[in-house]
Amino acid sequence: MDKQEARRFGLALMEKAEAAYLTTIDGNGFPQVRAMLNLRNRKRWPALAGIFDGHQHDLLMYFSTNTSAAKVAHIKANPKVSVYFCDPAQFHGLMLAGIVEIITDQRLKRQIWQDGWEVYYPGGVTDPDYTLLRLLPTLAKGWTGTAPFEFEL
Amino acid sequence: MDKQEARRFGLALMEKAEAAYLTTIDGNGFPQVRAMLNLRNRKRWPALAGIFDGHQHDLLMYFSTNTSAAKVAHIKANPKVSVYFCDPAQFHGLMLAGIVEIITDQRLKRQIWQDGWEVYYPGGVTDPDYTLLRLLPTLAKGWTGTAPFEFEL
Repeated sequence: MDKQEARRFGLALMEKAEAAYLTTIDGNGFPQVRAMLNLRNRKRWPALAGIFDGHQHDLLMYFSTNTSAAKVAHIKANPKVSVYFCDPAQFHGLMLAGIVEIITDQRLKRQIWQDGWEVYYPGGVTDPDYTLLRLLPTLAKGWTGTAPFEFEL
Repeated sequence: MDKQEARRFGLALMEKAEAAYLTTIDGNGFPQVRAMLNLRNRKRWPALAGIFDGHQHDLLMYFSTNTSAAKVAHIKANPKVSVYFCDPAQFHGLMLAGIVEIITDQRLKRQIWQDGWEVYYPGGVTDPDYTLLRLLPTLAKGWTGTAPFEFEL
């Protein structure tokens, strides 16, 4: 599988995976993983597809989270993270690693905001507990079910 | 949910999760995640249930892997890892973090070895490419679908 095929495989997996597993590194140096909303899942978040389509970093990822969450404190101290997408039934996996950014641009935060997120952030899009993260990955690794792949971005 | 309930919740999830997601930290300090065989899945690995039942560290985890895999090199340089189990449909998750050990005890390696693993390690149980890892976690964190939990071990 060449880099273009691996990229297409990864994109297809991102667009259908049920969850996105975000790993941060905690204050004691241990990796901490948790499931997050997979905002690239097209069926679940169709209104966001346009944000990703045609972006120059085709494997970029956004995460919405509570500002008060432990992961935000981890990221402020160490922004090296990875995200994992998988289909365990088919042994398909994609890991993307890189430096994650905390987005403060209100326009972008509004673009990503989805109806119903008031359940997480009662104050709406300007709730100070609404944090938006962006990962422009620099390393991709994965498994197609039969073979590994790896490439830099 | 008190610690005992969280522990029971976590054990039940470990015993049914399709895969175990192991995170290591690579040489550049980025967390790297990949799906591994979940040797605690009772349906998949019934012969291993006895290894875990009644163990004094009830949340311990074993992983079999190729000695030549990148994760083994990561662990030799930095043994801080975590493993994640989840049921994304129900938003159930369990993360266990701690120091992972490379097991060299041949008796234990034989105990864990399962029929059919020759596909991964053609030389059988004494194949130098068969590595057994053990994690005795020191931190547990998770999500029951409605609430977070966290405890030390």
